[in-house]
Amino acid sequence: MTATMTPTTAPPALSPAAVGLGQNGAVREIIRLALAEDLGRGDLTTEATVAPDATATAEIRQKAPGVLCGLPVAELVFAALDPRVRVTPVAEEGSWGDGRPVARIAGPARAILSGERTALNFVQRLSGVATASRRAAEIVAGAGATVLDTRKTTPGQRVLEKYAVRVGGCRNHRAGLDDGILIKENHIRAAGGITAAVGAARRRTPPMGLVEVEVTDLAELDEAIAAGADVVLVDNADPDGLRAAVARAAGRVRLEASGGVTLANLAEVARTGVDYVSLGALTHSAGALDFSLLVG
Amino acid sequence: MTATMTPTTAPPALSPAAVGLGQNGAVREIIRLALAEDLGRGDLTTEATVAPDATATAEIRQKAPGVLCGLPVAELVFAALDPRVRVTPVAEEGSWGDGRPVARIAGPARAILSGERTALNFVQRLSGVATASRRAAEIVAGAGATVLDTRKTTPGQRVLEKYAVRVGGCRNHRAGLDDGILIKENHIRAAGGITAAVGAARRRTPPMGLVEVEVTDLAELDEAIAAGADVVLVDNADPDGLRAAVARAAGRVRLEASGGVTLANLAEVARTGVDYVSLGALTHSAGALDFSLLVG
Amino acid sequence: MTATMTPTTAPPALSPAAVGLGQNGAVREIIRLALAEDLGRGDLTTEATVAPDATATAEIRQKAPGVLCGLPVAELVFAALDPRVRVTPVAEEGSWGDGRPVARIAGPARAILSGERTALNFVQRLSGVATASRRAAEIVAGAGATVLDTRKTTPGQRVLEKYAVRVGGCRNHRAGLDDGILIKENHIRAAGGITAAVGAARRRTPPMGLVEVEVTDLAELDEAIAAGADVVLVDNADPDGLRAAVARAAGRVRLEASGGVTLANLAEVARTGVDYVSLGALTHSAGALDFSLLVG
Amino acid sequence: MTATMTPTTAPPALSPAAVGLGQNGAVREIIRLALAEDLGRGDLTTEATVAPDATATAEIRQKAPGVLCGLPVAELVFAALDPRVRVTPVAEEGSWGDGRPVARIAGPARAILSGERTALNFVQRLSGVATASRRAAEIVAGAGATVLDTRKTTPGQRVLEKYAVRVGGCRNHRAGLDDGILIKENHIRAAGGITAAVGAARRRTPPMGLVEVEVTDLAELDEAIAAGADVVLVDNADPDGLRAAVARAAGRVRLEASGGVTLANLAEVARTGVDYVSLGALTHSAGALDFSLLVG
Amino acid sequence: MTATMTPTTAPPALSPAAVGLGQNGAVREIIRLALAEDLGRGDLTTEATVAPDATATAEIRQKAPGVLCGLPVAELVFAALDPRVRVTPVAEEGSWGDGRPVARIAGPARAILSGERTALNFVQRLSGVATASRRAAEIVAGAGATVLDTRKTTPGQRVLEKYAVRVGGCRNHRAGLDDGILIKENHIRAAGGITAAVGAARRRTPPMGLVEVEVTDLAELDEAIAAGADVVLVDNADPDGLRAAVARAAGRVRLEASGGVTLANLAEVARTGVDYVSLGALTHSAGALDFSLLVG
Amino acid sequence: MTATMTPTTAPPALSPAAVGLGQNGAVREIIRLALAEDLGRGDLTTEATVAPDATATAEIRQKAPGVLCGLPVAELVFAALDPRVRVTPVAEEGSWGDGRPVARIAGPARAILSGERTALNFVQRLSGVATASRRAAEIVAGAGATVLDTRKTTPGQRVLEKYAVRVGGCRNHRAGLDDGILIKENHIRAAGGITAAVGAARRRTPPMGLVEVEVTDLAELDEAIAAGADVVLVDNADPDGLRAAVARAAGRVRLEASGGVTLANLAEVARTGVDYVSLGALTHSAGALDFSLLVG
Repeated sequence: MTATMTPTTAPPALSPAAVGLGQNGAVREIIRLALAEDLGRGDLTTEATVAPDATATAEIRQKAPGVLCGLPVAELVFAALDPRVRVTPVAEEGSWGDGRPVARIAGPARAILSGERTALNFVQRLSGVATASRRAAEIVAGAGATVLDTRKTTPGQRVLEKYAVRVGGCRNHRAGLDDGILIKENHIRAAGGITAAVGAARRRTPPMGLVEVEVTDLAELDEAIAAGADVVLVDNADPDGLRAAVARAAGRVRLEASGGVTLANLAEVARTGVDYVSLGALTHSAGALDFSLLVG
Repeated sequence: MTATMTPTTAPPALSPAAVGLGQNGAVREIIRLALAEDLGRGDLTTEATVAPDATATAEIRQKAPGVLCGLPVAELVFAALDPRVRVTPVAEEGSWGDGRPVARIAGPARAILSGERTALNFVQRLSGVATASRRAAEIVAGAGATVLDTRKTTPGQRVLEKYAVRVGGCRNHRAGLDDGILIKENHIRAAGGITAAVGAARRRTPPMGLVEVEVTDLAELDEAIAAGADVVLVDNADPDGLRAAVARAAGRVRLEASGGVTLANLAEVARTGVDYVSLGALTHSAGALDFSLLVG
Repeated sequence: MTATMTPTTAPPALSPAAVGLGQNGAVREIIRLALAEDLGRGDLTTEATVAPDATATAEIRQKAPGVLCGLPVAELVFAALDPRVRVTPVAEEGSWGDGRPVARIAGPARAILSGERTALNFVQRLSGVATASRRAAEIVAGAGATVLDTRKTTPGQRVLEKYAVRVGGCRNHRAGLDDGILIKENHIRAAGGITAAVGAARRRTPPMGLVEVEVTDLAELDEAIAAGADVVLVDNADPDGLRAAVARAAGRVRLEASGGVTLANLAEVARTGVDYVSLGALTHSAGALDFSLLVG
Repeated sequence: MTATMTPTTAPPALSPAAVGLGQNGAVREIIRLALAEDLGRGDLTTEATVAPDATATAEIRQKAPGVLCGLPVAELVFAALDPRVRVTPVAEEGSWGDGRPVARIAGPARAILSGERTALNFVQRLSGVATASRRAAEIVAGAGATVLDTRKTTPGQRVLEKYAVRVGGCRNHRAGLDDGILIKENHIRAAGGITAAVGAARRRTPPMGLVEVEVTDLAELDEAIAAGADVVLVDNADPDGLRAAVARAAGRVRLEASGGVTLANLAEVARTGVDYVSLGALTHSAGALDFSLLVG
Repeated sequence: MTATMTPTTAPPALSPAAVGLGQNGAVREIIRLALAEDLGRGDLTTEATVAPDATATAEIRQKAPGVLCGLPVAELVFAALDPRVRVTPVAEEGSWGDGRPVARIAGPARAILSGERTALNFVQRLSGVATASRRAAEIVAGAGATVLDTRKTTPGQRVLEKYAVRVGGCRNHRAGLDDGILIKENHIRAAGGITAAVGAARRRTPPMGLVEVEVTDLAELDEAIAAGADVVLVDNADPDGLRAAVARAAGRVRLEASGGVTLANLAEVARTGVDYVSLGALTHSAGALDFSLLVG
Repeated sequence: MTATMTPTTAPPALSPAAVGLGQNGAVREIIRLALAEDLGRGDLTTEATVAPDATATAEIRQKAPGVLCGLPVAELVFAALDPRVRVTPVAEEGSWGDGRPVARIAGPARAILSGERTALNFVQRLSGVATASRRAAEIVAGAGATVLDTRKTTPGQRVLEKYAVRVGGCRNHRAGLDDGILIKENHIRAAGGITAAVGAARRRTPPMGLVEVEVTDLAELDEAIAAGADVVLVDNADPDGLRAAVARAAGRVRLEASGGVTLANLAEVARTGVDYVSLGALTHSAGALDFSLLVG
C-alpha cells in the first residue's frame, strides 16, 4: 500500500474548506439564520433597482488597524445566496493591516448587494476578536503561559469566534460543556466537596480525558491534587496568589489563571509560572473592526 | 358585540410573552443554536457531579453599571432546557442599576447549571446594547431628533438587539432588507441615477410604503426630492452639511443623518434639525455588561 | 389478558386528535409555514395596540352556505401561537349550514388577533373542498360508484384536502406516488407496453398491493386484464365508452372513470357501472367558503 | 470607483433568479413540502417501469385561456428532484394564451415523471391567480385606482400568490403582519378608540412607516385623519359612501376601499376616487387554469 | 407524440440515483444525522495532521463472506462531506464475495478520512441484512412462498434496510403504518371482533387497497374470510397448523406465516403452501459484515 | 451563600431526564425520524379500528435473557406521539432478567398502538448492546483493564448505544471525531510519520486534551512515547505482543488493545496489563433482545 496523498490546486489558500469551516453544520446554520433575518421576504430595494442579469465587481476594504479574520465566512455567505459569486482574497487571513483592500468579489450584482451587510457583520466581529487575540498573544510571548479563550462567546457563533482566537494567535479552552470536565464551585458543592466531585467525574465520564477543578485557595489546591485532578483553575487570584499556587503545585498539575485578568495585567499574570491564562474579553468585549464593501 | 378584553394575571410583567419574544421563531432558533453549540453531546461535568433529581435556587447578579436587558431571553433559555425552571425577575427590564440581584432562579439543578453560561451570554450582550442606547437617548433628549439603530447587528440576534435598542430608549430603523426601501449609492448607480432608481422603486414595490434615498450632496438631495423620495439619508455629512440639507429640504422630506456619528458628536448632530440620526455603534460596538449566576 | 379499553372524556369530539390531524407532521409543517409567512418578525399592529396580558373572546362565523370543515386545523393554528387559546366548536365538523356561529374562542387577545387570518385561510378553503365533495357525493348516491379525489391538490395541504374530501362524503384515491401503483401512458411507453409495464410493477414492487393501469380503448383494456391488472383507469371516455368497458371487463377488474368528468355529467358517468369516478375539481377548483372571526 | 455592472447571459429571462423566487427560503420550503407529500417513500410506479438512466423530453401545455404564471416555480420543482432537468420556456411568463405549449423539459425521465404533478399543481393555481389579477387590472385601467391583493392567500404560498398578482398586473398590499400597521376594528376596541390606537402605533412601531386605520363611517374617518393616519381603509362602503369619504378626506389621507368588491362592481368602485381597492378574490377564489405535461 | 426516452450514460450503474436512494429525504436525513453525531464540531485529528489541499485515493475492502450492499449510501456519505469525492464501485451491488476490493475512492484526503467510519457503518450493516436475505431467498427457492421483511428495522434506516432486503433477494412487506391495512389482535379487540374490524377498515380507508387480518386459529380464519379479508396473517402456527390453514382457505385469501420462523425451519414453513413468510430476523438480527477502508 | 440543593420527587428513577437523554437533541432527532418513517401519513389500521377517545393499558415484556436497556427511550417515543401516555417501569434499567414485565403503559389507545413498534425497535437493540456489554464487563472483572466501545455504532444512534454500553457496565471511548485526538495509520502517513503527526496535533489542537496514537510494533511504540503521546493504541496484536508493549511502555503511556478481540479471547487480552481493550462488537454485532407489547 503506497500513500498517494498529493497536493491539489483546487481550493484556494483561504477557502472555507481550507480553514475547516465549510463543512461545519453550526456555521451553515448561523449563516442561514443571519441571511434569513436580514432578507426576510426579499431585498425590496435591490430587486426594484438592479436588473436580474446584471453582474458586478466589488471590493471589501479594511478601514481600521487590526487582524483580518472571517473572509472564508464572507465567502460562505455569498455562496449561500448565489453560488456564482466569487470571492478572491487579496490580503491574507490572519494578517495585520489597515486601510487596504482585503478581497475582490465578482458575480451577480443582486447577490453581492443583498449579502453585503451580512458578510460584513461577520467579518467586522471576527476581525475584532482576532485583533484582541493578537494583542494578548504578543503580550505573553516569551512568558511561557498560553492564553486561552472561554465560553463567554456570542450565542450561535462560538465555532467562529474560537476560530478567530486561533487566527489571532491564542488557543482554545473547551469548545463546550461536552468537551472536557471542568468542576466549578457549584459542582463541588452539589457533589459534597472536591474529593467527591473528582471521584464522581472519574467514575462517570470517559476514562480518557483530563479532569480540571476550580479552586479558590491553597487548601483546595491541595485537595484537588490529592483527589487526582489533572488541571487546576485558580479563580480570581492576584499574581502573588498565583505564584504561591505554582510553588505549591510543583508541577504535579497544570495551573490555569482565570478571572480578573485584563490586557493591562496579562503580562504579569503570564509571568507567574501558570500554564494557562484564560481571558473572556477575547470574545465578549472585542469591538468590531470597520470594513466596507464598494461596488465598482 | 361587546368587547370583553380583560386583563389576565397569567403572564408576569417581564415574561417573554409580555415583550413579544416568546412567539418569535428567530428567537427560538438562536436559543436552540446557542444551547446546541454549548451542550454538544451533553454537560459532562454536571451529569457526573449533580444528582438528576437535585433542585437548586440561584441568583443572577448585575456586576457593572448599566441597563438591565434580556431577562426574558434568559427565561426562554432555561425553559428550553427544562420547563420546570422558574425565573423570577427582581429588577425591572430596562432599569438602570449596578451590583444588584436581577433575578432569582429555582428548579432542577442540572438545568440551571447547564444553561447558566448561555443565558448569561445573552443577558450580558443585550444589556450592553441597552446601556449604549440609553446613553444615546439621553444625549438627544430635547433635541428633536430620534436616534435609530442600523442593520450592523450580531448575526442571528437582530430581533433581540433591536429589542434592546428599544428597551434602552432609542428606536428601530429597518428590520431587514424587506422592511422598506432604502436606495443606496450602489443601487443608484445600478439603476442609472436617483430619478431612475426612485421611479423603479415606486413602480415595483408595494405602493403603501416610504422610499428613502441616500445622498451625498445638495444636488443629489434636490434630485431625490424632485423624484419623490419620502426620506433622505444624508451620508457622512458634518453638522454644517446637515444644517444646509435641513434648510434646503425645508420640510419636503424627512432627513436622516448617518455615518461618522459617535456619542461624542451626537448632541451636535441631533441639534442640526434632522429628523433621525442612525448609529451603528449601538449594536456593533456595545461592550458586554458583566453578570454572574450564583447557586445558593 | 383482558382488554381494558375504555372511553375517556379528555378529547372533545372535534379535536385535532379526534380526526387524526394533530399528530401529523405534514400538518404541523404547513401550519408553521403559514404562520411564519404571515407573522414574519411579529404582528406590529397587535403588539402596539393590545396589552400583552389582555384576554378576549371571539366567534368564528360561517357566512355562506356549505359544509363546515377545518375547525381542528384552526385549533392547531391558535395552539401553535399560544397553547392557552381555547377553541370550542358550536357547529359540527361536516355539518351543512349558513350564517351561523361555528366556534367560540377564548384566551390571550394577542394570539387570537395574530392567528385570525391564518386560521380562517385554512377553514375557508377546506370548507370549500368539503362542500364540493358533499355535492358530488349526493349526486352519485344510489348509483353504485364511489367518487374519488385526485393528486391535483394544493401544494403542502394534500393531507388536509383529502381529509376535507372525506368530511364531505367522498373517498380518497392514492395519497401520493408511494401509495400504490398507477401505470399511466408515459410509464407504459417507457416500459415498452402494458404487458411489460405490469410485469415490471409485479416484480419490483411490494407483492401485497393492487396494480392499476390507465387505458384509452378496449384493446388496451384487454391487454391490461390479460397482464393481470387489478384496477383499470379508463381515461377520457364518454358514457358510452365507459359502458362498453364495463361490459368487456365483466367483473374481472375494477374500473375507474377519469378525465372530463364534471358535476354536470357526474350522475350519468356514475350510472355506467364503473366502480370509481375520480374528480380533480373536488380539490383544484373548489372556491373558498366565507368565514369571519369577530372579537367580543 | 467605476461601475462595472454589465448584463450577463447566464440566467434565462424567466429563470427563478430573474423573478426573485430562487433565493426565497419560503418558496424552497413549500416546494420541499409539496414534493415530500407526493413522493413519500418514493414513486413506486416510475421506479418500477422507467430505467434509471432513461432520459426524456416533455412539454407543458396550457389548455385553457388565461395568463401563464409559475414556470419558474416548475423549474425549481424539477431542480429540487434532479438538477439535470432543464426547463425551457416557450411562452412568456405573464403572457395571455390558450391551447399552446409553454415550456419544454429535458432530462432524466424519472425526475420528469415524478415531478410532473407537483409542478403542474403550482402552475395551474398561480396562472389562475394571475388571470384573475389581469382581469381586475383591465377593469380599473384608466380609473386612477390601484387594485391590491389581501392576506386571504393559500397557506404556505403567499409569496407565490403575491408574485402572481404582480404578474397579472395588480399590486401587493402588506406581505404580512410585520409589514406595516393596519389598525382594524378589533385593535381600535382593544386600544380604547382610534385616537388611542394610532397614538400607540406611532409610539411603539418603527418611526419610518405609514399607519393605516380601518373606519366604517365619516366620523371615524374624521377621527383617523385627526389622529394622524396616513391611509384609511373604508370598510364595506357602497360607491356613494366611498365618494363621500373621498370628498371628506380631501387628499389629506390616502383611501382604500375594502369589502364587498367583486369583478362586477370593481369598475364603479374604482371610479369613486379612492386610491386603492383591495380584492380578496384575487387569491382566495381564483380557479385553477388547466395545464398538462406530455412526454415525447 | 413520439417517445424519446433514450439511455443516458451519465449515472453509473450503482449510483444512488440508479437505486432510487439519492432523492429520498429520509436517506439524506439519516446520513446527515450520522455525520453530525460523528463529526460534532469537527475532525480534530484529521484537521491537525492532513493538509487542507491534500488528495488521496483509497479502497474499500470486504473482509468476510457475504452480499455487498450499501455502496450507493457510502457514495452519498462522502458527497455530503465534499462533492469532489469520487466513489467507483469495483464489485457489483448485490454480488456475493469475500476478501475483495469493492470500491475505489479518490478526492480530498480530509473528506475521505472524516467520512470513513460513517460510510463503513452503513455498508457493514446493510451488507449484513442483504446477506441474511440472500440466505433466506435461497432456502425458499422453488418452494412457492415469498419471504417478506417486517417493520422490526433499525430506527431511522428502514428505507435502507428494506432496500438491502431487496438486494438480497427477498421482498418487502408494508413500508410503514400508512402503507396498507394490517389488523392485529389489539385492533380486533378494540373494534369488537374481526368482522367489525374488517368492516371499519373497509369503510374508513381508501377503497383501493388490500385488507390483511391476523388470526390465531381456523375459526378466526373463517371469520376473516367471511368478513372479506384479502390476506390473512396466521400467527405463530407450526407447519401442521399452516397446512390446515392453507386447506381451509382454499385459495379464497392469500396466507402469510409469521412468528416463530427461523432460517432453520424456513424451508419447511415455505413448503406448507402459504403465499408469504415474514421474517423479522432479516433486519433485527443480521450481524454486521466486516469492511475496511485503506488509503493508498 | 448557602447551598440549597435538595432532592425533588418529580422525575421518576428511570425517566429520560434521569439518564440524561431527554434533553439530547440527537436523541429527539432519531426518535422523530423513526416515528416519521413508520407513521408516514398516519396509522391507517389504528385510525380505522380504534376510537379516538379510547384509552388502554399495556405491558412491555422481556422475552429473552439479558440486560434491560432503553425504557427511557420508549418513554420518549410515546411522549412524542402523545404526552398523555404514561410509562411506568416495573423492572430496573440495567437489571438482568428474562420472561418478565418491564413496564406498564397507560393512556390513549391510538398512541400506544401507533408507537408500539418504534418503541420496541429501540428497546430490543439497546438491550442487546447492554447485554453484550454486561458479558464483556464480567469477563474482565478483576483483570485491571477497562473495556471500551468504538465508533462502529448504528448511524443515528451513537449516543443511545454508548448509553447502553455504560448501562451494561463497560465505558466509552471517543464520542466522535471532535472528542479527542486519535492518530491512526492514515494520519501518520499523511503527516509524514509519528513524530510529525504528534507534533502537529500538539500545536493545532486545544492544549488541554490527551493525544492517542495507533502503533503496530514496538519501534512505533518507542517513537510515539518519544513524541509525547499520552495513550497508545496497539493495533491487532496478540497477547504476547501486548505483553511486550506493556513491558516496553513501562507506565510512561497508557495502552489500548484494539483489533481482533472477541468475547472468546477478551479475558486473556485483559490480563496482559493493557489499560483499555476496545471492542467494536459491543455495538456492531449485538443481536436484538426480544420484547413484546401487549394491550390489556
